Amino acid sequence: MNAEIITIGDEILIGQIVDTNSAFIAKELNRIGVSVYQITSVQDDKEHILKSLKEAEENADIIIITGGLGPTKDDITKYTICQYFKDELVQNDAVLEHIENLFKKYITTPISNINRQQALVPSKALVLHNSFGTAPGMLLTKNNKVFISLPGVPYEMKGLISNEVLPFLQKKYNRPYILHRTLLTYGLGESAIANRLDEWEDTLPNNVKLAYLPNLGNVRLRLTAKGFDKKMLKAEVLKLEKELISYVSDIFVGFEEEDSIETLIGKLLVEKNKTVATAESCTGGSIAKQITSVAGASKYFIGSVVCYNKRIKTDFLGVSENTIKKYSVVSAAVAEEMARGVQQLYKTDYAIAVTGNAGPTKDDTDKSIGIVFISIATTDNIITKEFNFGQPREKVIEGATMKALEILKNILLKNT
Amino acid sequence: MNAEIITIGDEILIGQIVDTNSAFIAKELNRIGVSVYQITSVQDDKEHILKSLKEAEENADIIIITGGLGPTKDDITKYTICQYFKDELVQNDAVLEHIENLFKKYITTPISNINRQQALVPSKALVLHNSFGTAPGMLLTKNNKVFISLPGVPYEMKGLISNEVLPFLQKKYNRPYILHRTLLTYGLGESAIANRLDEWEDTLPNNVKLAYLPNLGNVRLRLTAKGFDKKMLKAEVLKLEKELISYVSDIFVGFEEEDSIETLIGKLLVEKNKTVATAESCTGGSIAKQITSVAGASKYFIGSVVCYNKRIKTDFLGVSENTIKKYSVVSAAVAEEMARGVQQLYKTDYAIAVTGNAGPTKDDTDKSIGIVFISIATTDNIITKEFNFGQPREKVIEGATMKALEILKNILLKNT
Repeated sequence: MNAEIITIGDEILIGQIVDTNSAFIAKELNRIGVSVYQITSVQDDKEHILKSLKEAEENADIIIITGGLGPTKDDITKYTICQYFKDELVQNDAVLEHIENLFKKYITTPISNINRQQALVPSKALVLHNSFGTAPGMLLTKNNKVFISLPGVPYEMKGLISNEVLPFLQKKYNRPYILHRTLLTYGLGESAIANRLDEWEDTLPNNVKLAYLPNLGNVRLRLTAKGFDKKMLKAEVLKLEKELISYVSDIFVGFEEEDSIETLIGKLLVEKNKTVATAESCTGGSIAKQITSVAGASKYFIGSVVCYNKRIKTDFLGVSENTIKKYSVVSAAVAEEMARGVQQLYKTDYAIAVTGNAGPTKDDTDKSIGIVFISIATTDNIITKEFNFGQPREKVIEGATMKALEILKNILLKNT
Repeated sequence: MNAEIITIGDEILIGQIVDTNSAFIAKELNRIGVSVYQITSVQDDKEHILKSLKEAEENADIIIITGGLGPTKDDITKYTICQYFKDELVQNDAVLEHIENLFKKYITTPISNINRQQALVPSKALVLHNSFGTAPGMLLTKNNKVFISLPGVPYEMKGLISNEVLPFLQKKYNRPYILHRTLLTYGLGESAIANRLDEWEDTLPNNVKLAYLPNLGNVRLRLTAKGFDKKMLKAEVLKLEKELISYVSDIFVGFEEEDSIETLIGKLLVEKNKTVATAESCTGGSIAKQITSVAGASKYFIGSVVCYNKRIKTDFLGVSENTIKKYSVVSAAVAEEMARGVQQLYKTDYAIAVTGNAGPTKDDTDKSIGIVFISIATTDNIITKEFNFGQPREKVIEGATMKALEILKNILLKNT
C-alpha cells in the first residue's frame, strides 16, 4: 500500500514558496500505515500534469494531488484531471450552495460566474467537502488506483486530509502498521556511531530500516518497522531498540519525543515550577523564539535581553567593562556575567546566556569566527562551555541555539 | 535550458523534515535563467534513485541531486551514481586533506576509515569543494546532460550552489533571462481580480505567464517572462506591468522585493546611519532573530527586550500599570508604551513593539486569540496598528513578525 504526492504550481518550481504540504500529507499517511513512494512537484502545465499522473499511476496505489484548483486561468488541475479520466464537468449543487454561503458570510465582493464555476466537478468524482474554502476535494478511481485532488492552500488541504481523506483510506484499505522510533545521541559523529553499529546493522530484518539523521553535535538514529501484526511489530522494535541502545549507551540521551526539545524543557520547568530567561548576543533572540514557540510558555519564560550592542551588556546586564577589556566580549567570563545579570534582573531560577561571533567578519573581538560561549546559571551553580561552530552565520546561530537548549535540558533532567 | 531537482532521503517521504533545499536551488537557478522542470523527492533506495536519474535525464539538461552523501550505510547516493555512470570510486587527495583538516580543527573524535571514505569520488567526476563539510559535491556529464550531486545539509548545499554550481552553469551555458515581477494587491479576492483581467490575460505573449498567488486578504500577481535579449525583455515586462497596474490601480500596493525584507531594512538603516531595537511580547524574539539573521546587523541593531512576563513590561520598559488595567496588556496603548520604552532604554532611532495573544488560550486579556498590536516608534512619530492573525499559534507569531518588518520597511522607504 503506497502513495505518491503530486504538488502542482509554478510557484514551487521557481522557489517562490517552500512546499510544506507534502511533509504534512506524508506524515499523516504514515500514521495510518500508508508509505509515500515519491513526492513530485510539477508545473501548471497540462502535458506535464498528465505525464505525472500517468507515472504516478504506475508507481503507487494512491495518488494525492494538491494545488491548481483556484478559480483563475492558471488553475488547470480540474480540467486536466477531467481529460485524464475522459470525463466531463458537471455542476454539484451542494458545492454551489456552500460557495454561495461562504460569499454571504465572509466575502464583501459579490459572487461571480468564476466563483460559481468552482462548483463544477468531474461527473465520476466523489466530492470531498472543503469546510474552509470554495474549491472542493475530488476523488476518482481508475484500475483500482485512487486519485485525490485537493486545494493547495495549507489549512484547506489539512482540513480535507483529516476530515475526508484519512477516514476514506482507513475504511477502504487493510493497511500495515508503520512504527518509527528515533533515538537521540549526543557527543559522537555519525561516522563514529556507524563504526560501532557496522555488524549489527547487517543483521536487521528486511522489514526494519535504520537511518542516521546528523545535526550539529547530535545524531538521531531512526528505526522504521513495517508489519501487519501490531503486537508483534511493537515487540520486534522494542527488542531492536534495546540492542541498539547497548551499542550507544554512553551517548544515548533519550528518545525523540514526539516532542521537540523546547516542549520537553517546558514540561520540565512546569513540573518543577521554575522560570527561565535568556541573555542573547550572537543568537539575537533565536533561543527566546524557540522557547516561546511552545503554547503556554508564559508559565515559565519571563523574557530575554537581546544585547547585540556591547552597551546593553554593560548598562543593563551589568557586565563589567573590565571583564570585557581583560577577556574580550566573546569570553567565558562575559557569558557568565550575562547569565547572572539576566537571572537577577528578571528574577528567574534559570538563565541562559550566549556570546559569540557568528561572522562573517571578526569585528571587535580577538576570538575566531564561529567561537561561542554558552553559560547556564542555576540558583546555586553556573555551567559555561566553549564551542566552535565554524561557518556560515546561520550554522553558528542555529548551533548555539540548539546547544544552549540541550545544556539546559540536561541540567533540568539531572535535577529531577 | 531546464533543470530537474532530485532530493533523496526517507526523512522527506515520511514527513520528518520539510524539503527546503529545493526552493533555494530553484530560486537560484531561476536567477541565472535556468527553469526548473520538476522537483522529485525519492527514497534512500538504489532502484528508485536509478529510475529517477533516468527519468530526469529524459526531462532535463541539468540534474541537481541533494542528499545521501553522508558516511553511513543509509547514504547510498554516491554508489548509485557510480552504478548509473558505470564508473568506479577513486580517492581524491585534496578532499582527503580537507576532511583531515576539518577533523583536526572542529571534531574531537579521531578520524576513522568511514570518514576517509568520504574522499572517494567517481573517477569521472569533477569534484566541487565543500567548505563547510566533509562530503564533496560531484559533477558528471552524460550525453551532454549535467548531473550534480550535493550534500543535503542546507548550509553545505547553499555554499556549494553559490560558490561552485552557479559559476559553472553560467560559464557553460548560454542562458535566457527569466524576469519575475510580483505585484502586491490588497482588498480583493483572486476571482474578482481574474474577472477584471479576463480579456487582457488572453492577449499576453507566449513568453509571458501570469500567476495568481492568493493569501489571507492579499493576492500577489506574478508576471514571468523569458527571453534572450535582456533589454527587450525588460521593456516588455515594464509595458505589461503598467497595463496590469491600470486594471488593479485601486488595490495595487507595491512590488514584492527581490531582497528579503530584513536585508532591505538593513540596507536602509545603514544608508541613513540609524539604529533600531525591538520590544517583543507574543513574538518572543522572533523579530530580533530575523533582523540579526543578516550579516552586519550589529551596525544598526542594538538589541531587544523580550518581555513575555507582564512584570518585564512594567519594570523595564516603563509600561504603566494603569494603562494595562485600563486597556489590557494586549492593546494599542501598551504597544506604544513598549515601543517608546525600548527606544529610550536602548537609545535608538527606531523601535518596534509587539503585544498580542498567540493562543491557543486567552490567558489574562480580554482580546480574542490572534489579536496583535504592532507599534513602530520613530524619533518624531509613532504608528500603531491592530491585526487579527487568527490561529494557529505559529501563524500569529509569523504574521506579526512579517507585518512588523513590513511596516518598518515602509516607514524607512517613505523617509528616504
